[in-house]
Amino acid sequence: MRPVRYGMIGGGRDAFIGGVHRTAAAIAGNWKLTAGALSSTPDKARASGIDLGLAIHRSYENWEMMIAAEAALPADLRIEAVAIVTPNHLHAAPAIAAMEAGFDVIIDKPLAESMASAQKIADTAAQTGRRIAVTHTYTGYPLIKQARGMVVSGSLGNVRRVMVKYTQDWLSRAGDLEGNKQAEWRTDPTRSGAAGAFGDIGTHAANLVEYVTGERLTDICAELTMLPGRRIDDDGAALFRLSGGGRGTLTASQVLVGDANDLAISVYCDEAGLHWSQERPNSLTVARRDRPTELWHAGGNRAYLSAAVRGIQRTPGGHPEGYLEAFANIYRAFGEAIRGADAPEPGWATMDDALAGMRFIDACLASSAQGAIWVKI
Amino acid sequence: MRPVRYGMIGGGRDAFIGGVHRTAAAIAGNWKLTAGALSSTPDKARASGIDLGLAIHRSYENWEMMIAAEAALPADLRIEAVAIVTPNHLHAAPAIAAMEAGFDVIIDKPLAESMASAQKIADTAAQTGRRIAVTHTYTGYPLIKQARGMVVSGSLGNVRRVMVKYTQDWLSRAGDLEGNKQAEWRTDPTRSGAAGAFGDIGTHAANLVEYVTGERLTDICAELTMLPGRRIDDDGAALFRLSGGGRGTLTASQVLVGDANDLAISVYCDEAGLHWSQERPNSLTVARRDRPTELWHAGGNRAYLSAAVRGIQRTPGGHPEGYLEAFANIYRAFGEAIRGADAPEPGWATMDDALAGMRFIDACLASSAQGAIWVKI
Amino acid sequence: MRPVRYGMIGGGRDAFIGGVHRTAAAIAGNWKLTAGALSSTPDKARASGIDLGLAIHRSYENWEMMIAAEAALPADLRIEAVAIVTPNHLHAAPAIAAMEAGFDVIIDKPLAESMASAQKIADTAAQTGRRIAVTHTYTGYPLIKQARGMVVSGSLGNVRRVMVKYTQDWLSRAGDLEGNKQAEWRTDPTRSGAAGAFGDIGTHAANLVEYVTGERLTDICAELTMLPGRRIDDDGAALFRLSGGGRGTLTASQVLVGDANDLAISVYCDEAGLHWSQERPNSLTVARRDRPTELWHAGGNRAYLSAAVRGIQRTPGGHPEGYLEAFANIYRAFGEAIRGADAPEPGWATMDDALAGMRFIDACLASSAQGAIWVKI
Amino acid sequence: MRPVRYGMIGGGRDAFIGGVHRTAAAIAGNWKLTAGALSSTPDKARASGIDLGLAIHRSYENWEMMIAAEAALPADLRIEAVAIVTPNHLHAAPAIAAMEAGFDVIIDKPLAESMASAQKIADTAAQTGRRIAVTHTYTGYPLIKQARGMVVSGSLGNVRRVMVKYTQDWLSRAGDLEGNKQAEWRTDPTRSGAAGAFGDIGTHAANLVEYVTGERLTDICAELTMLPGRRIDDDGAALFRLSGGGRGTLTASQVLVGDANDLAISVYCDEAGLHWSQERPNSLTVARRDRPTELWHAGGNRAYLSAAVRGIQRTPGGHPEGYLEAFANIYRAFGEAIRGADAPEPGWATMDDALAGMRFIDACLASSAQGAIWVKI
Repeated sequence: MRPVRYGMIGGGRDAFIGGVHRTAAAIAGNWKLTAGALSSTPDKARASGIDLGLAIHRSYENWEMMIAAEAALPADLRIEAVAIVTPNHLHAAPAIAAMEAGFDVIIDKPLAESMASAQKIADTAAQTGRRIAVTHTYTGYPLIKQARGMVVSGSLGNVRRVMVKYTQDWLSRAGDLEGNKQAEWRTDPTRSGAAGAFGDIGTHAANLVEYVTGERLTDICAELTMLPGRRIDDDGAALFRLSGGGRGTLTASQVLVGDANDLAISVYCDEAGLHWSQERPNSLTVARRDRPTELWHAGGNRAYLSAAVRGIQRTPGGHPEGYLEAFANIYRAFGEAIRGADAPEPGWATMDDALAGMRFIDACLASSAQGAIWVKI
Repeated sequence: MRPVRYGMIGGGRDAFIGGVHRTAAAIAGNWKLTAGALSSTPDKARASGIDLGLAIHRSYENWEMMIAAEAALPADLRIEAVAIVTPNHLHAAPAIAAMEAGFDVIIDKPLAESMASAQKIADTAAQTGRRIAVTHTYTGYPLIKQARGMVVSGSLGNVRRVMVKYTQDWLSRAGDLEGNKQAEWRTDPTRSGAAGAFGDIGTHAANLVEYVTGERLTDICAELTMLPGRRIDDDGAALFRLSGGGRGTLTASQVLVGDANDLAISVYCDEAGLHWSQERPNSLTVARRDRPTELWHAGGNRAYLSAAVRGIQRTPGGHPEGYLEAFANIYRAFGEAIRGADAPEPGWATMDDALAGMRFIDACLASSAQGAIWVKI
Repeated sequence: MRPVRYGMIGGGRDAFIGGVHRTAAAIAGNWKLTAGALSSTPDKARASGIDLGLAIHRSYENWEMMIAAEAALPADLRIEAVAIVTPNHLHAAPAIAAMEAGFDVIIDKPLAESMASAQKIADTAAQTGRRIAVTHTYTGYPLIKQARGMVVSGSLGNVRRVMVKYTQDWLSRAGDLEGNKQAEWRTDPTRSGAAGAFGDIGTHAANLVEYVTGERLTDICAELTMLPGRRIDDDGAALFRLSGGGRGTLTASQVLVGDANDLAISVYCDEAGLHWSQERPNSLTVARRDRPTELWHAGGNRAYLSAAVRGIQRTPGGHPEGYLEAFANIYRAFGEAIRGADAPEPGWATMDDALAGMRFIDACLASSAQGAIWVKI
Repeated sequence: MRPVRYGMIGGGRDAFIGGVHRTAAAIAGNWKLTAGALSSTPDKARASGIDLGLAIHRSYENWEMMIAAEAALPADLRIEAVAIVTPNHLHAAPAIAAMEAGFDVIIDKPLAESMASAQKIADTAAQTGRRIAVTHTYTGYPLIKQARGMVVSGSLGNVRRVMVKYTQDWLSRAGDLEGNKQAEWRTDPTRSGAAGAFGDIGTHAANLVEYVTGERLTDICAELTMLPGRRIDDDGAALFRLSGGGRGTLTASQVLVGDANDLAISVYCDEAGLHWSQERPNSLTVARRDRPTELWHAGGNRAYLSAAVRGIQRTPGGHPEGYLEAFANIYRAFGEAIRGADAPEPGWATMDDALAGMRFIDACLASSAQGAIWVKI
């Protein structure tokens, strides 16, 4: 399969997630970085392009130039898709412009800094018919896909209760906002949006719940908090209800000491409880009442995994894959779709999923602002 | 030290927790089962006494007879304390009678089936000056005591967030209430009280939070649920606030498949996160931000544990102690107090602790009944 | 069932294993400490008896007096069995005398300080027809019994390979032999026997292999070592062969830093690998090739465990039992046998098992002395 | 940094390790696949090149053609290095030819099918001065590098004992050799060499011991076995001695059911025991005697890891990296060396390391053939 030529917006020197996207695309093997507008600072954009070995004339000073220039190239040379890895408030404009110029788009989560911006992106996707993928990384893990398959099939019965947490500690100290580019924009409501931890990682947790259960969160009662001197939430918890009648709890925080990137989920169905933790992603615990607890292991040769789950793994059992491979699975699936593959379900977060995430953010903010009352999502 | 002679009320054939109390007392080594009114059915009471090797004339037909007869014996022969292991609605009457007859009392949790009954017990304790201990088992674990010491000392800073769960699956099926003596009374509001899972095990979870943090739960927003056809909650979750300003989540359930007796707590302070799980009670995880995560191990010879924690263990590191030994620690401490020991803090749940548990139950019921609103505890 | 009256030899103040035996007997519930010769120092023997609440006239100055005096009591008063918890070189004389006086015997492992002494004990048992149990503690764990049942049934196929280790660190420092009563006798060949770690804990490891597989070690190639200045081994490893054709490795050490009481075994059969670790005794891992790995959990109510294994547990799943309960299972079974129970197999190490342990020690010493050559056991 | 242009020998359709090398090189980011002789079957070689997007004229029919043609290209176009991923018996010829033609070489382990072949490779490297790296994958894991740093620094004292195992189950059944290309050549002595499991994975285990301890295995006593009908070992275990005076045990097997790729090592020094398992590679246990056990976590931002170890990671703590990233670390380091970087120590197995591995194989075979006697390595 011919690799998909793509241009990246954002992700230059000092950025974090841009490098992750590029490595994911390299592992996927069906993408080729061909152009870039890697920074909002022209000099930095150019220099970053050189770092990455881009042709000098395709390392652009800004994304507007990239879209215009690439669109003007012959179809077999120009980029086919754009990867957007800028801060949240800089998602909508390039995404919309790219789609209008005929490019498919892959974009980091959350979809935008506000529901209004997110809706504009979704509307443009609908109007232009372009493909757009949101990188809710954690749904790229093989055993998460296996869990989804098991739950959604109904063979375990209804979902009774979900516990999900996504907790970190990198903002646990008063001084953590200073001198850290990642912290600066993520805690600034003008760039990140009105939500902090709940926008940055709470959306991942909510998305994971919806992905694994195949349901939507319908109601939420959330209490968000923050350390003194901060402007947006860095910690909080919620009770929620699911569309299928189940209940759950969700905690998201960037100030819980000792937790690095602790996304963990338990989904209890009538017949089994499923447990998965992102920091040990290669096993899935399936606990039943009258049987030994089962540890399902990742691995491309594990006969008991579904064919689809086996197929996205690169190595046999016992060769751990991780975060970058999960991310690569999203790129791989989106690239295959661009090349015309017809998978039973998309391997990325769709506009519907991403808008659900935006509604989740707004509902949590509204609930918390009113003293943690129940709010419809 | 001369063992404390005790009489047991409840705990005959087919009972569960009575046997646990007796084994705990045997491990403690400073108690001697001397009398019993082991069942509300006279024949069964007598037969159960024979099973246990009680002198025939001290295996009584009912607790009223035991209290009267024992009180009439010479001081150096009669029992000194009473252990009450009956269903919740049968706690208050014998406890009050025993204290009024001059006996100390050790009693299973929750203190009673209602706040009114609980308060009467507490009032009698205050009036008579008798000692009374409530067996919140899980505070008897050595590493829980170590965690309490670390948190309460303040050396880890303030408590930011607590996550606690106590989940089981023994009532997960519709048919589980039939033909199971334990299930029958625990799901019957006239015997168990108005709360189900939240009374039976939610109180353990709340007590554990209060014990480890040295704070009280002040506000709660709880949603309790139950399977179709049941009369009292078998599942639920809550957001709560702590007296020191921290926040938390609590889940209690008897219908979460695959969880046997899964009491687990995480306490995040400014400087460390502490994690403990009852099913693997001999290690305590202490996670910090810039250091390797620490596993603190139980063991009577572990130099890094506090002297008090070392002193209650029977074996050196690597020889696992468990649930019965934790229970024994409560008996041991109460027996020592009866013999006049003067420990820095009681080794059991006090009347204050037990009444806090009753308020917790009432607040959860009130919150849930009103649609899961915030209620003061 | 009427408790078995027993007298203890050894186990006075400052002893370790004596207290373990007494607590185990208390948990078992079918034993009653009735007499004792608790120390080889008469004053200490008497004082220790008072500590334990023995009748003053049944706390004897030495074991010879205890055996003589108890044998002279009426049958319904005198002790029925003797528990021997002295250092190894003091096992044979009281064991033989006790059996000759008509008492059953329960005795700590290894059976004796030398094969000659061990054989004399076994011969006396055969001649007198008295019951004798050796407390290889670790076979008392429920999941070890479950593992044995699974392997010995043959349903998993033949045993291919075993890995076993029993490692500790309490002698890891040069100074550890000083001022520690336990260390002193266990490292003194005149009291412990010619083997150190291999006698003290290597025998447990070998016994565990034989118990779980139902086979005997037939050949061994062992290299024992010790820290400078020591007289008997404190560390070593071996290759071995099993009577069924399988192979294995065994490591025993008291100088491996960070290991507290780390007895762990893996038994690989044609169809599954079984893994168990004493420090987390309540789960047994059963790994197969084309299925999820299974965690079998302890618990008196776990339907998938054999009835015999369920029957020796005191609590339902999720209530951890530990070392003392495993020890209690040995006492329980031996007490029941004394009262005439007819179990399908003994719940303790028999003379055959204990003599196999003595041969193991001798073979390891012989192998190592000749440069770690293969020796028949 | 300009990527290193490389040509791959072997690794076409149906191969396993070739794809791993290519993905590793892609993750490393400093390599570019430019040519290939991907199969010994010309048609397959060509087709495989097309799969990978190679220029048609640089997808060669065999490696001789590739080396000749590439050497004839201008210096700024031709490949700079060759990656050899053929079966063991096809390592030496292309490696020697490549070095003689001026190319650097990266080659899968073991170095060759025999010591004679291996020595020829090493001799050629010495004569030509070309760089050559052997991919002992597991030394590419960050926490293995951290462990090496800690042990080799001497701060933990001397190495006392090592336990290492590398066990799999993919050959556990009689029929496993049929219809599996990987199994066929790995169990065929004419292609794999005289050793089976000990050559394929035992060498990894031995290399890991030598890497972490900074010592060499000096003596070994090994017993190799195999299932009926096989020609070379599929299972075995050994006692060994280290150059620093420590001792160890090693097990390697491809027939131990339930083990997927279970490489695990424990290194006990005077002051700490270190434990690492490849299937959970992102934590390293450091156990000490008088302190809580430490879990050291991987992550590019973990301040307690050495700067060198932090520097080779792509993501912060809690974002698991795995096998492919470990492999990529070897490519990264070798690519940097080719570009002139001067690291304090090589990031790959050197000729000395690889020859030590070959001697290990020969010694194990010799020992086992003589009944498992001690042999000098």
